[in-house]
Amino acid sequence: MTAPLCAQDYAEQARARLDPSIWAWLDSGGADEHTAHANLGAWPALRLRSRALRPLAGAHTRLTLNGRTLAHPILIAPTAWHGLVHPDGETATALAAAATGTPYVLSAQSGTAIETLAALPEPPHLWFQLYAQTRREDTLALASRALRAGARALVLTVDAPVNGVRNAEQRSGFSKPDTIRSVHLDGLSPPAARTAPPGGSPLFDSGLLDTAPTWDDVAWLRHRLPAGTPLWLKGILDPEDARLALAHGVDGLIVSNHGGRCLDTLPSTCEALPAIAQAVAGRIPMLVDGGIRRGTDILKALALGAQGVLIGRPALHALAVGGAPALAHLVQILRGELEVAMALTGCRTLADVDAGVLY
Amino acid sequence: MTAPLCAQDYAEQARARLDPSIWAWLDSGGADEHTAHANLGAWPALRLRSRALRPLAGAHTRLTLNGRTLAHPILIAPTAWHGLVHPDGETATALAAAATGTPYVLSAQSGTAIETLAALPEPPHLWFQLYAQTRREDTLALASRALRAGARALVLTVDAPVNGVRNAEQRSGFSKPDTIRSVHLDGLSPPAARTAPPGGSPLFDSGLLDTAPTWDDVAWLRHRLPAGTPLWLKGILDPEDARLALAHGVDGLIVSNHGGRCLDTLPSTCEALPAIAQAVAGRIPMLVDGGIRRGTDILKALALGAQGVLIGRPALHALAVGGAPALAHLVQILRGELEVAMALTGCRTLADVDAGVLY
Amino acid sequence: MTAPLCAQDYAEQARARLDPSIWAWLDSGGADEHTAHANLGAWPALRLRSRALRPLAGAHTRLTLNGRTLAHPILIAPTAWHGLVHPDGETATALAAAATGTPYVLSAQSGTAIETLAALPEPPHLWFQLYAQTRREDTLALASRALRAGARALVLTVDAPVNGVRNAEQRSGFSKPDTIRSVHLDGLSPPAARTAPPGGSPLFDSGLLDTAPTWDDVAWLRHRLPAGTPLWLKGILDPEDARLALAHGVDGLIVSNHGGRCLDTLPSTCEALPAIAQAVAGRIPMLVDGGIRRGTDILKALALGAQGVLIGRPALHALAVGGAPALAHLVQILRGELEVAMALTGCRTLADVDAGVLY
Amino acid sequence: MTAPLCAQDYAEQARARLDPSIWAWLDSGGADEHTAHANLGAWPALRLRSRALRPLAGAHTRLTLNGRTLAHPILIAPTAWHGLVHPDGETATALAAAATGTPYVLSAQSGTAIETLAALPEPPHLWFQLYAQTRREDTLALASRALRAGARALVLTVDAPVNGVRNAEQRSGFSKPDTIRSVHLDGLSPPAARTAPPGGSPLFDSGLLDTAPTWDDVAWLRHRLPAGTPLWLKGILDPEDARLALAHGVDGLIVSNHGGRCLDTLPSTCEALPAIAQAVAGRIPMLVDGGIRRGTDILKALALGAQGVLIGRPALHALAVGGAPALAHLVQILRGELEVAMALTGCRTLADVDAGVLY
Repeated sequence: MTAPLCAQDYAEQARARLDPSIWAWLDSGGADEHTAHANLGAWPALRLRSRALRPLAGAHTRLTLNGRTLAHPILIAPTAWHGLVHPDGETATALAAAATGTPYVLSAQSGTAIETLAALPEPPHLWFQLYAQTRREDTLALASRALRAGARALVLTVDAPVNGVRNAEQRSGFSKPDTIRSVHLDGLSPPAARTAPPGGSPLFDSGLLDTAPTWDDVAWLRHRLPAGTPLWLKGILDPEDARLALAHGVDGLIVSNHGGRCLDTLPSTCEALPAIAQAVAGRIPMLVDGGIRRGTDILKALALGAQGVLIGRPALHALAVGGAPALAHLVQILRGELEVAMALTGCRTLADVDAGVLY
Repeated sequence: MTAPLCAQDYAEQARARLDPSIWAWLDSGGADEHTAHANLGAWPALRLRSRALRPLAGAHTRLTLNGRTLAHPILIAPTAWHGLVHPDGETATALAAAATGTPYVLSAQSGTAIETLAALPEPPHLWFQLYAQTRREDTLALASRALRAGARALVLTVDAPVNGVRNAEQRSGFSKPDTIRSVHLDGLSPPAARTAPPGGSPLFDSGLLDTAPTWDDVAWLRHRLPAGTPLWLKGILDPEDARLALAHGVDGLIVSNHGGRCLDTLPSTCEALPAIAQAVAGRIPMLVDGGIRRGTDILKALALGAQGVLIGRPALHALAVGGAPALAHLVQILRGELEVAMALTGCRTLADVDAGVLY
Repeated sequence: MTAPLCAQDYAEQARARLDPSIWAWLDSGGADEHTAHANLGAWPALRLRSRALRPLAGAHTRLTLNGRTLAHPILIAPTAWHGLVHPDGETATALAAAATGTPYVLSAQSGTAIETLAALPEPPHLWFQLYAQTRREDTLALASRALRAGARALVLTVDAPVNGVRNAEQRSGFSKPDTIRSVHLDGLSPPAARTAPPGGSPLFDSGLLDTAPTWDDVAWLRHRLPAGTPLWLKGILDPEDARLALAHGVDGLIVSNHGGRCLDTLPSTCEALPAIAQAVAGRIPMLVDGGIRRGTDILKALALGAQGVLIGRPALHALAVGGAPALAHLVQILRGELEVAMALTGCRTLADVDAGVLY
Repeated sequence: MTAPLCAQDYAEQARARLDPSIWAWLDSGGADEHTAHANLGAWPALRLRSRALRPLAGAHTRLTLNGRTLAHPILIAPTAWHGLVHPDGETATALAAAATGTPYVLSAQSGTAIETLAALPEPPHLWFQLYAQTRREDTLALASRALRAGARALVLTVDAPVNGVRNAEQRSGFSKPDTIRSVHLDGLSPPAARTAPPGGSPLFDSGLLDTAPTWDDVAWLRHRLPAGTPLWLKGILDPEDARLALAHGVDGLIVSNHGGRCLDTLPSTCEALPAIAQAVAGRIPMLVDGGIRRGTDILKALALGAQGVLIGRPALHALAVGGAPALAHLVQILRGELEVAMALTGCRTLADVDAGVLY
C-alpha cells in the first residue's frame, strides 16, 4: 500500500483497515445518501479562476478567529468516539491538532475527557461541542466543565433534534462496544433517543419531541455563560435560521448538514453557504463542513464567505490509518494544497480570497 | 437476509422471492421505462430546507379527507391481483391497512370481493377503484355494489383507455393464472382489450376506441351516484384536465401516470403536480402516487400541494416479503420517516408543510 | 431468442446475427458517434402531455403527402445495399413496404434496380434518392430513369459532399463484397470518393471539392425535371438552408444528419427540427429521420412540425432478422405504438398532433 | 493491433506500449483530474451547424501567423523530455513537424538542444518555450540562445509558478531517468522546486514564492528582446490577464490550463476561450490547447476566436507509437478531419470559420 498522498487516499486505506460496521458508522450518510454525496460533489463542481503573474512574496494562510491568530483555516470537526478507529482515540487527535496548529472541536460524545486532553504536555487549541440536554442545567454544567478545562469556544449543535434515518449503519449491524463511553455525558439524565424505531410506535406519538430544544434554550444558555464566551451554533443551513442566530447573540456559525447523516436530500453545504453568508453579512464568522477533501475545496469555501472549514470523516480516516502522525500529515497536505491553490489563483493571503477566485 | 429497513429493502427482497414473470408484471414500466424511472428519480432530486430549533411539542401527522380524520397521509394504491404475490391476497392488504389506519383503495381488478374485506373483524377504511365499463350501467352497478359494501369513496381511473406498451412484461412471459380472477368484473360484459397486438391489425382500425370513456361518462356517473358520494378521478396529469374535473364536480384528484406503466415519456408525477395544484387552487383535495419510497418523498408531495400519497408497488413488495405484518411495517417505516423529515424541517403538523420546506 | 417486441429488440437480434463488420457498417456513426447517440437520446428526453377522456371514436393515422393519401406517417429511409443484411435485399424491403402501405425511398446505392421493384406483383409506393453526380447530366439521367420506372418523388441528398470520418467502420475492416453493386450507378462516370485517406494527402489539396454540388445544381435540376415532379432535399439541418430550399422551389425537406454518420457533433434531428419548421412555416412538407425507435418518437416528430418520419437502421435490423415479414412486423409495431401514444395524448387524428402534446 | 485511425487510437496504443509510470507522467492531470477531463469533454459538447450546397472549390486551410504563412492551424505544444517516449526524442518530433509544415514549440525542458534541431537537413519551423528563471538574466540568456538558433517566436509560460498537485504521477513512482536532461537549463541557477512536499513544511513558509515571476518580469523581458521578436504568453485563462498581456505588449496568447496538470477545477480552455477572445478583440493572435483530439475540435476552437491549436499529449502518444512517421500521420489525420468539418459546415477557408459554424 503506497503512502497516502491526499485525503481520498486516507479514506480508501481506512476502509481497507476498518471493520465494515465501523466503516458504515463512520462513512455512511442518512437514508439514500443523496446529501452525503452532494457534499462531496459540490465543491469540485465549482470552477476556479486562474490568475497569472501576481505578486506572491510573503504569502501566508493566517487568520484570526475568536480573537486568536490561527496558522491556517482548517479545524477538526466534532465526531464521536475516536477510540473506534484508533486505540489512542481523542488523544491522538489532540496530538495531531497541537502539532499542526489546528483547533480541535471536541465532540460531546468524546471517549476521552477534555481535562485529559488539556493536560497533555502540548495541549491543542480546544473547542467543545454541546448538544442541548433534556435538562437545561445539564447543558450549562457541560459548558462550564468544558470552559474550566480550557475550551476556547462552545459549539451548540442544533441540526439533530431527532436521529436521522441511518439505514446503511443499521444494515452493518454497528453497535458501540461498551469499552467506548461518552465520558462527558456520564451522570447526566440521558435524553431518550429521539428516533422512530423501525416498525415500532411512531416518533410523534411518543412525546419525545416535547423536550426538543428551541431558540429559547439558546437564549437561556447565552445569558448564563460567562461574558465573552464564544458561543457558536453548528448545523445552520438556512439564511432565516442564520438571522435568528444573529438575533440571539451567537458568536459564530458552522454551516453544516451533519455530514449528510441526518436528513437526506438537504442541499450540500456548498450550495447553502452563499445565501447564509449574505444573511450574515460579515457580522459574525462562519465555518463550513461537509465534503472538504482538497485544498481547492477550502479555497472555494472561503470564496463563498466562510472563514474556515472543518474536517470530520477525513480526520477519522487518517486516524484509522496511522493515528496522530497520519492526521498531522493530512492537515499538512490540505494546507499545502490550499497554498498551491492560492498561488495559482493569485491570492497572497486569505484576505485576497473572495468570490473573484471563482469562475 | 437482514430485516428490511426501508421501502427499497422490501423491493429487493421481493425481487429475490418472486417468480421473474410476476416481478416483471409488478415492477416494470411501459416501453423503455423512462417515466417509471423518472417517478423514482424526481422526488429525491428535490432539496429540502432544514430549519433548526423550531417548537415541535405536540407534533402529529393527522389530516382530514372526505370528512374523516386520518392518522397519517399514506394510502394503499389500487393494484390488481394481490394473490399473485401473497396467498392471502387482498385480505392481507386489508389487515395491514386496518392495523395502521391506512385507507385502502381496492382495485377493480381485486381477486377478493369488497364484501369479504368489509366483513373482516377489523375492516379497513376502504375506497373502491372503477374503470369505465363498455356499458355505463355496468360501471354504475360496480359503484353501487362498492358503496353498499362500505366503500367510502370511488376512484374512477381515467388514464388508461388503451393498454400501454408493456414490453418488459411481455418479454417475461407473464400470464395471470386462472386461479386469480377479477371477481368484481364477473358477469359484466367484458371490454375488449384496447391494445394493438404486436404485429397484428392496428388498434385504430379495430373500432375498439369507439367505446373509450369521455367526460360525458363522468357527468353521467356523477349524476347517478347517491348525493354526497365522494367521486375521485385517478390519472390526471395535466392542469387542463384538472380544470375539466372541477367543472364536472368531482371530489378529489389523484395525480398519477399509472406508475409509468401506460404511456412512456410522460413527466413524473412530481414534475406534474405543481401546475395541477395551481389549477385546483385548493378547491378539492389531491393525492399523488408514483415513486414514493421515503418519508422525505411524502413531505415533498405535500409541499407541492398534495394532501397525501398512495403507495402501489411498495405495498406489493412488502406483501410479497411478509404479508400483512410486512405491509404494516412498511407503512410504519414511511410514517416514521415522514415524522423525522417534519421534525428536521421544523414542521409540527401537516398544516406547516408548504412550499417553504423546499430549498 | 424471444420474438421481437419493439425496434430495439430487432436491433439486438440483428447484432447477434450479422457479421461484426457489416454491423459496424450498418450501425456505427461518424467519428466518436456523439451525433448518432444524440439522435437516439433526444426523442425520449421530450416529455409528452397526457390528456384524459377525450373523444377517440373514428381515430386514424392517415395523411396526405405529394398529393396522395398514406395510411400512416412512416417511410423507409434510403440506405445502401440491403443485400448485405438479407439475401432478398431491396426486394424484401419492397414487399414489406407494399404490404404495410409504407412509402419506400429507394437508395441511389440500391443493389436492386428500381425497375425490378416496380415490376413486383404488388409494387410499393416508391421514391428515389439521388446524389449529385460529377456530371449534371448523369444526375438528370438517374432522375429520369427513376421517374420512368414509377418513382413518385425524388430525394436529392445534400449533406454528404464528402465522406464522414467513419472510424468504427474502418476499424471493423468492412468492405463491400463484389457481389453487391450499386446498380443504378453502373455506366455513370464515378465521382471520386471525396474523403481524406487516413495519413494520405489532404482532401482540400486534391481538388476533389471543385465538383461538389451547390445550390446552382439544385436550380439546374429543378428546371429540367418534368413539371409536377416532387423534388425533396434530404440532409437539411439548418433553417437558413431550409429558406434557400424554399427559394429554389423544392417540394419537401427531409431533416436529417445522415444518421450521425457524416459530421460528428451535429445536433440531433430532434433538436434541429423546430427551428427549421419555423423557417418553413408549413409552406412545404417536412419529414425527419434519425433515432426514431418508438411510436412516441413519431408523435413527437409530428408535434415538432414534421409530417412523417423515416426509419433507416431499424429497417435494416428487421430485414436482417427476418426479411420482409419482420420489416412488415416492425412497421406495424411502430404504427401500433403511435396509435397508443395518440390515444393517451387525446389525439384522434394526426391533425390533432401539435406542440400541445408536448409537456 | 490495427493501424491508428484517430488521435484516440494513438492514445490507446501508446498506453499499451509505455511503462505505466511514464504513462502517468504523460497523461495524468492534477489532483482529481477534473480539469483534464473537462478539457476533453468540452469540445465535443459544442454542436456544429451543418450547411449544405455551399461553394467549396479552391478550399484550403492556410493562415498567417507571426507574419508567416502556415499550411494549417496545428502546432506542436511544448512538452518536456520526448526521449521518455521514443529514443529519437525531440528529433523525431522535429522531423514530423518539418514534414507536415507544423510549427514546433520546443519545450524549455527539451532533452535535445535547439541548435541540434535547427541543424537538421530539413529543420522545422521552431518556436521556443521559456519559463521565468530565478535570475532574470538567465531567462534573457535562454531567449537569446533560442533566437540565435533560429526560433521564430518565444513563448513565456506563466501558469505554473508552483507545481500542481500531481497525485497520479506521484502514485506511479515516476522519476526522470538521469539519461534524460533538460539541456537548455544546464549551468543556469536552478530554481528550487516550488511545491509543498507531501507532509513536509508548507510552501508559503519556505519563501520559495518570493521569487515567483510577475508582470514586471514580462515588461523587463519585453524591453530587452530584439525589436520585432514575437513574444507570446502561454497559460492565460482569464480575460483580465489577457488585458494585462495586451498592456505589456505581448504578440500573442496561448489560452491554456497546462493540460489540466497544474490547478485542478479550472475551467476547460474551451469554456475560457470566448471571454478571452472578447477581451483581446483581435488585436493579437491567440492559440489554444487542451483536449484537442479531432478536426471538429479545431474547427470549434477557431469558431471561438483562436487562430490555431496546439497538440501536447496527442503528439507524445503518436511519438510513443511510431516516432516521426506516426506523428506526421497524426497531424495529417487532424488536418484531414478539419477539412471534412470545414466542408460539411460550408467553410471554404479559415476566414469563413466564425461563431456561425456553432449551433
